Amino acid sequence: MQVHSKDCILRAVDTSLAIKAIESSFCDYSLGNVQSGAVAHLRFQEPPGDFHLKSAHICRSPYFVVKMAGNFYRNPEYGLTSSNGVMMAFNAHTGHTICVLADDGALTDLRTALAGTIAARLIAPSPIKSLGIVGAGTQAKLHAIWVSRHLGIEHVQIWARNIERAQQLAQDLGESPFSVTVQTDLSSLSRACDLIVTTTPSQKPLITRDMIRPGLRIVAIGADSPGKTEVAKDVMAAADLILTDSTQQCLAYGECAALAPSVQTGTSSIIEIGEVLLGQRVIDLQEHSIAIVDLTGLGAQDAAIAELAIQGLSARR
Amino acid sequence: MQVHSKDCILRAVDTSLAIKAIESSFCDYSLGNVQSGAVAHLRFQEPPGDFHLKSAHICRSPYFVVKMAGNFYRNPEYGLTSSNGVMMAFNAHTGHTICVLADDGALTDLRTALAGTIAARLIAPSPIKSLGIVGAGTQAKLHAIWVSRHLGIEHVQIWARNIERAQQLAQDLGESPFSVTVQTDLSSLSRACDLIVTTTPSQKPLITRDMIRPGLRIVAIGADSPGKTEVAKDVMAAADLILTDSTQQCLAYGECAALAPSVQTGTSSIIEIGEVLLGQRVIDLQEHSIAIVDLTGLGAQDAAIAELAIQGLSARR
Repeated sequence: MQVHSKDCILRAVDTSLAIKAIESSFCDYSLGNVQSGAVAHLRFQEPPGDFHLKSAHICRSPYFVVKMAGNFYRNPEYGLTSSNGVMMAFNAHTGHTICVLADDGALTDLRTALAGTIAARLIAPSPIKSLGIVGAGTQAKLHAIWVSRHLGIEHVQIWARNIERAQQLAQDLGESPFSVTVQTDLSSLSRACDLIVTTTPSQKPLITRDMIRPGLRIVAIGADSPGKTEVAKDVMAAADLILTDSTQQCLAYGECAALAPSVQTGTSSIIEIGEVLLGQRVIDLQEHSIAIVDLTGLGAQDAAIAELAIQGLSARR
Repeated sequence: MQVHSKDCILRAVDTSLAIKAIESSFCDYSLGNVQSGAVAHLRFQEPPGDFHLKSAHICRSPYFVVKMAGNFYRNPEYGLTSSNGVMMAFNAHTGHTICVLADDGALTDLRTALAGTIAARLIAPSPIKSLGIVGAGTQAKLHAIWVSRHLGIEHVQIWARNIERAQQLAQDLGESPFSVTVQTDLSSLSRACDLIVTTTPSQKPLITRDMIRPGLRIVAIGADSPGKTEVAKDVMAAADLILTDSTQQCLAYGECAALAPSVQTGTSSIIEIGEVLLGQRVIDLQEHSIAIVDLTGLGAQDAAIAELAIQGLSARR
């Protein structure tokens, strides 16, 4: 059985093909072409950590994929990364193992950033001047890079709950083709930016009612399991349009979960990204429209990026 | 990341320690010392196959284990085994990967046979002359070997739905220290044997009402998911004692699922093997008592056998 390392995997993934693969996975999901196993969770107390398993098969694919990933919060004390992940690919005709993708979570990081970038393109105003990034972790950095590149953005503003981490991220992004400033106040960032991407594991809303204004555009990627939220219920309710990766999953544990059942059931303004990409639904945003994207992460995205990695690795042999 | 092959793994497992490890896993399960993730299932139509994921952590263990296993029924047409499996072990303090146990399902086969052997010891009459094996697959063979060895049985009778496969198994067991005969009639086997182990994936009962007799003792290991059954409802209801690996799991999809809710709720005669091994419950079988063991397979057993394999592999380095 072959084990591929993170470096080999990342070299084998063509990022322009990757964005197309993630677009296709949104479409396949919305078309019902994806079979997903129940998500399994294990939780650890001492030291504290959590671990989950996702599995998915996209119908036409010769592979199906299992992703095993976790966060153990005290790892940095021992010089280890807190997050970690590995994928395993199987032959969808025989069930036999194909390979281990020992990517240390890098494929998940990439597919998450690409999903956010695809989403951002759908709701960003044009022209767009300034991108606001909420958070200072891996996804904050990746979204600053990918969204700026794909939307031609020249200015990025960063706010994080820990100002020092925001300053560190700004420094890390110093060589980028866009300018970076750190905002000490989230309201100011919200007013100044045409598009905001929220990337934190916050358990209480950061984008609050007082930040509602015409033309507010948010891509919220942090809330991916019960208990997490970055966007206040009032802000969600004020949206003219809500886009999701999976409406079912977002209503269960994304930002949409905060919406009143009455709003949830009259879901004409909640649309899946796959439906838009397929041309089944058209979005028509005015300059003053408020639009929010709720992303919870799909097993289909793991399967799609893993398949692309395997193809790339085979081609390099 | 280290990948261990089936041969290395099997050489590293000390089978006398393995039986103790499986006994402990029954006890840990019944004590509530095991954390198990939801079981995920994927099903494939063309070619037909099914695949499942189990995950478990036994509290005191430094490892947790994910098992990925499947059956693809047309594989023999391509010269491949229909069943296949792989385990992955993770550090329970950091979540980081420890190794891949590429055992091709051999550890699952072993732990299943050992669990059946432990169960057989608890209900077998003494002295015991003849063991009946229902089925002709891997578990039929392993149970013939392990149960005979541990109970000192000198005669084994085999019956299978496909008589040719039963004859083939008898031939394969030709070198064993016990004699083997093939029965063409299951009723005759049932009358002639002191203990019967049923090992098939049957979806309709094989041990039927007409086979009920004083002193009937059955270990049923085939029914491990919804829709499978080897022992008729009437036979289950006639039992003086029912032992389970997990009463909850057996009531959900083992042989116990066929029992009427009234029998299920008055479960004084349904006891977990772990409770018996711990001395929390005492079983007192008379010569005429009917006793049935219902085994559905536990993630804790996968975790226990994987831990033993890892210890053995480390010691050999």
